[in-house]
Amino acid sequence: MQYSPFPRIKRFCIYKLVCLTIFRLSRILNNNKQINLAGRKHCYQYSAMIGKGKRDVVTEFIEGLVETYPGLQYLDGFPEVKVVLRGDVSGPTYEKVAVISGGGSGHEPAHAGFVGDGMLTAAICGDVFASPPVASILAGIRAVTGPMGCLLIVKNYTGDRLNFGLAAEEAKSEGYKVEMVIVGDDCALPPPRGIAGRRGLAGTILVHKIAGAAAASGLPLSDVVAEARHACGVVGTMGVALSVCTLPGQPKSDRLGPGKMELGLGIHGEPGAVVADIQPVDLVVSHVLNRILSSETNYVPIKRGSRVVLMINGLGGTHVMELMIAAGKAVPILQLEHGVAVVRVYTGSFMTSLDMAGFSISIMKAEQAILQRLDAATKAPHWPVGVDGEHPPAKIPVPVPPSRSAKNDEVLSRPEQLNEQGRALEVAIEAAVSAIIHLKDSLNEWDSKVGDGDCGSTMSRGATAIQQDMKKYYPLNDAAETINEIGSSIRRVMGGTSGILYDIFCKAAYARLKLNSQSDVAITPLQWADAFEGAINAVMLYGGAAAGYRTMLDALIPASTLLKQRLSGGDDPLDAFVKSVDAAVAGAESTKQMEPQAGRSTYVSADMLTSVPDPGAMAAASWYRAATLALNHHNSKPPPPPPA
Amino acid sequence: MQYSPFPRIKRFCIYKLVCLTIFRLSRILNNNKQINLAGRKHCYQYSAMIGKGKRDVVTEFIEGLVETYPGLQYLDGFPEVKVVLRGDVSGPTYEKVAVISGGGSGHEPAHAGFVGDGMLTAAICGDVFASPPVASILAGIRAVTGPMGCLLIVKNYTGDRLNFGLAAEEAKSEGYKVEMVIVGDDCALPPPRGIAGRRGLAGTILVHKIAGAAAASGLPLSDVVAEARHACGVVGTMGVALSVCTLPGQPKSDRLGPGKMELGLGIHGEPGAVVADIQPVDLVVSHVLNRILSSETNYVPIKRGSRVVLMINGLGGTHVMELMIAAGKAVPILQLEHGVAVVRVYTGSFMTSLDMAGFSISIMKAEQAILQRLDAATKAPHWPVGVDGEHPPAKIPVPVPPSRSAKNDEVLSRPEQLNEQGRALEVAIEAAVSAIIHLKDSLNEWDSKVGDGDCGSTMSRGATAIQQDMKKYYPLNDAAETINEIGSSIRRVMGGTSGILYDIFCKAAYARLKLNSQSDVAITPLQWADAFEGAINAVMLYGGAAAGYRTMLDALIPASTLLKQRLSGGDDPLDAFVKSVDAAVAGAESTKQMEPQAGRSTYVSADMLTSVPDPGAMAAASWYRAATLALNHHNSKPPPPPPA
Repeated sequence: MQYSPFPRIKRFCIYKLVCLTIFRLSRILNNNKQINLAGRKHCYQYSAMIGKGKRDVVTEFIEGLVETYPGLQYLDGFPEVKVVLRGDVSGPTYEKVAVISGGGSGHEPAHAGFVGDGMLTAAICGDVFASPPVASILAGIRAVTGPMGCLLIVKNYTGDRLNFGLAAEEAKSEGYKVEMVIVGDDCALPPPRGIAGRRGLAGTILVHKIAGAAAASGLPLSDVVAEARHACGVVGTMGVALSVCTLPGQPKSDRLGPGKMELGLGIHGEPGAVVADIQPVDLVVSHVLNRILSSETNYVPIKRGSRVVLMINGLGGTHVMELMIAAGKAVPILQLEHGVAVVRVYTGSFMTSLDMAGFSISIMKAEQAILQRLDAATKAPHWPVGVDGEHPPAKIPVPVPPSRSAKNDEVLSRPEQLNEQGRALEVAIEAAVSAIIHLKDSLNEWDSKVGDGDCGSTMSRGATAIQQDMKKYYPLNDAAETINEIGSSIRRVMGGTSGILYDIFCKAAYARLKLNSQSDVAITPLQWADAFEGAINAVMLYGGAAAGYRTMLDALIPASTLLKQRLSGGDDPLDAFVKSVDAAVAGAESTKQMEPQAGRSTYVSADMLTSVPDPGAMAAASWYRAATLALNHHNSKPPPPPPA
Repeated sequence: MQYSPFPRIKRFCIYKLVCLTIFRLSRILNNNKQINLAGRKHCYQYSAMIGKGKRDVVTEFIEGLVETYPGLQYLDGFPEVKVVLRGDVSGPTYEKVAVISGGGSGHEPAHAGFVGDGMLTAAICGDVFASPPVASILAGIRAVTGPMGCLLIVKNYTGDRLNFGLAAEEAKSEGYKVEMVIVGDDCALPPPRGIAGRRGLAGTILVHKIAGAAAASGLPLSDVVAEARHACGVVGTMGVALSVCTLPGQPKSDRLGPGKMELGLGIHGEPGAVVADIQPVDLVVSHVLNRILSSETNYVPIKRGSRVVLMINGLGGTHVMELMIAAGKAVPILQLEHGVAVVRVYTGSFMTSLDMAGFSISIMKAEQAILQRLDAATKAPHWPVGVDGEHPPAKIPVPVPPSRSAKNDEVLSRPEQLNEQGRALEVAIEAAVSAIIHLKDSLNEWDSKVGDGDCGSTMSRGATAIQQDMKKYYPLNDAAETINEIGSSIRRVMGGTSGILYDIFCKAAYARLKLNSQSDVAITPLQWADAFEGAINAVMLYGGAAAGYRTMLDALIPASTLLKQRLSGGDDPLDAFVKSVDAAVAGAESTKQMEPQAGRSTYVSADMLTSVPDPGAMAAASWYRAATLALNHHNSKPPPPPPA
């Protein structure tokens, strides 16, 4: 028993084909019940387990469509009439040729999604994979056809030809001018004998556009017909499927085994021309293009030197990324192997086959008159936008940093002579990294109780890298650049969140120091405090943590707040920094009382946590304390710098 | 061993999540190898069996994208830089605020499909489900950011926040004005504690549009940031999945068993909040809307009486038809159960999760300022078109036939008094149907050798219906209407192709008789011949057969051709009709020599066929002969009608 979230659909059982009565959203439901449907000849009636079950999926689709697109309307009358039409057209007064298409549903957005000024005037929707009834087609013709008449664009399937044909004849007897153009763009099979002819596939969408644009330009019916018929003659299509579509309410066919693909498929689940092993997408695309452009079948009058339009059409279960990849493969193959210029590319899911995985390729000769029709504006919601116009160079070089390109090439090195600020910086950095390296085992021990147990090792790795890099190339006389380099050292050796957060910390401090100071003037205590604050804010913004989250911020925020407060209050900078160290240490200790907000700590019991501080906070307090006290000690020998 | 048509991709292995290295087109490949991936922590390296394997899927996607949309370009430099940008924007000279977004790939068309004037200025593409590297983000910022600065719109995932954050800080240190807005619109989970926060989902697309339109209007960075941040606060999203997405190169997870769905899923294959039995789509939609609009979580400030925007977003493996159905359900639920007015509906696949089946619903408060931004024109190719404007009444009544509405209500009946033409018509019809009824067994016998064996039974059923209906209600004094009724009688009882073709035959004859004659004047032989020819042409056009295809046309075409020829040559009409009978019979006999072009006959050996005529042709010759001869006999009693 399969369950479906969608209510049942009605389905004609025409010509003894397999038919179906319930729409499923998910193909996975049937994965385990694979039955070959090829030989089935009977209708299955299947009612949805739950739900109203009084409407059919096509009607519900149309209801959602008109909710989405206010320019569309639908005919409301008999339940079998499922016609979507332009909201701004009324047959008796319509002064242009109406362009009408349609057929079985299950090919969405075709055909209803292409209704709009400049494309289709109305779409007649049958049940899933079933030709619409004559009454429905006739209702559509009556609703939108004015004195200029209408063109019916029909895909070459017997049911559609006959039903649209009968409706056309009935409409004629009512006095309407009606013409029909039949599209058979399939290039998968050798030219068929007899009645069936070539199937109508996604090339039909291009014919819709051309006819729609011709009609919108005000041409009479005979001219619109001529353009549509000409378009049919210059387009070829072939499809490739990697799964068979799920016939609603039916177990999925396993006609295609694992690792197989089907070339030259139909859009109603009918078998393709050839089943082959799956090959790389460029080989598949190349094969399909060879078939469409074959000089043997000579289906499309495209020669070397021709300009062409390319359509990559998804069959319903194929992702945009995959379609774009196929498009990217097709263009160079067409240009290099077939010597044609690709002037337009339409990539998307235009005429689908329910949830079939795969795509079809259509090639149309891009004569100037055709291009003009394809490029003409339309309000049809699913016609692709942004595809016209000439291609500028697609690749542009990666830009280098605007005014600093010289610096990137410059090899940084430790200055031979350190100035006063450089010496102070060196002392502070050395003290900070030593403190972290000494604290390694304690950090690891705390972290083993509340986290991964590697906080000390990770932090110590970063500290060691700073120690080594400082000796080689930190430009210590430029404090801002040095802070920037500290970030890079950390990032190079420390993985995970802590590495990138400390890099952000340094980069943010660097950006503020650069903005607020000059490289040859010593940075003031207040400038340091501002940079410190900015760095903490960046860590909060990008990392998402705040005070009380049991992170390094619980050491840094109290320190920064107190520092800013004291300095603004006019305190002696030396004093202010020392007081802020106390705040950092107290803050780190206070994390013992905090609940964790992220990471492994969230799974640790509260009792365990109360005896353990956050190792990140302890590390932060440790390097801040060491750096500040060392700087104080260094500065207490010569007189301290004046406050800002 | 799985095969793929697509070359391998590169993938970061961030934070020990499952990662992946090859892109598959088809989910069916893995159906039979279902392995729960939840516990996996290692990277799998997998190289494509065939194919160049030197490019990654994201780069190939971008190449296809820029082939499709000539307004887009991409940065070409280091292999890790995957940035799509507007072709008409160059950072140093750009006079508006640049709006930049991005993140892991696999969500296409997000984000690159939303690059265009009025929406994103650039999209930074990571590998599949992996945050882009800092260098790539920084390159994007440098490429499009001018003096007005840039806004980074980032979905709330740690990797994206940190990488975009670090890039932002680096860009600031280079002198760029950079701001970041973080989108967390997920409403599936209760308000989280701590750092992680709510995930960014499809509501991000609406934020892109609002910020893009604000930037396009020329506002300064602070105002664009304010609008984007406000938009983040008034949108909520929740998803429902019916299958888990296929992680490229990985067997498909069976986390969701048959008949199960997952509510509140993530867009990277991470588990949802709840797994439940699949329910009808209206119940699912109702549940999701209740969660988004819950007064308990109070995520979005939407109250009864609010106006809202609705987005139904497909997750990649969900068909347009299904999305529209969900949209059609959501609108009345919002209006009736939540008392809000739905003023815009966006239905489509905007932010996907590779091939995941399912959809998400986003609701945004539609303040006037927001609506204006959403409705503003954009060149972003995947922003939906045709969605703005007020809804006219969506349903319009099915139109009745324009000038014949009276007739439809009128009950047809056989005239009490037949005029001369009425009597002749009755004689001819009676003779024709009798001939078919008498030929029933022969037709069946021929058909049993070359077809289904039911031609005689089917034709006889039609003939009997005509016989009965004629007695009751054929308006015999009006020849055209009578022919029309014959078509309806046939259609009522004869299924399959032959029934609809004979109906087309009659309707086409009727249309021509109506056009060329008046109901109260007898139809001339030439008018009959014209109608006959028109009827045959309609059968050829809609049925697809021609002379020599071994069908009824092989009897009718020679008769019609000869008849027209003789009448045009001035022959006596009586004579002309008799000669045309001979042509019909000879034509039917000649089908013995013809190869079949359709139906079961194509499978029958040529030897067998040469002894059997086509039963359809024999039936046609038979009724034509009987009708013509009876008419001749009838007319030979009184003087024949004068030729036209």
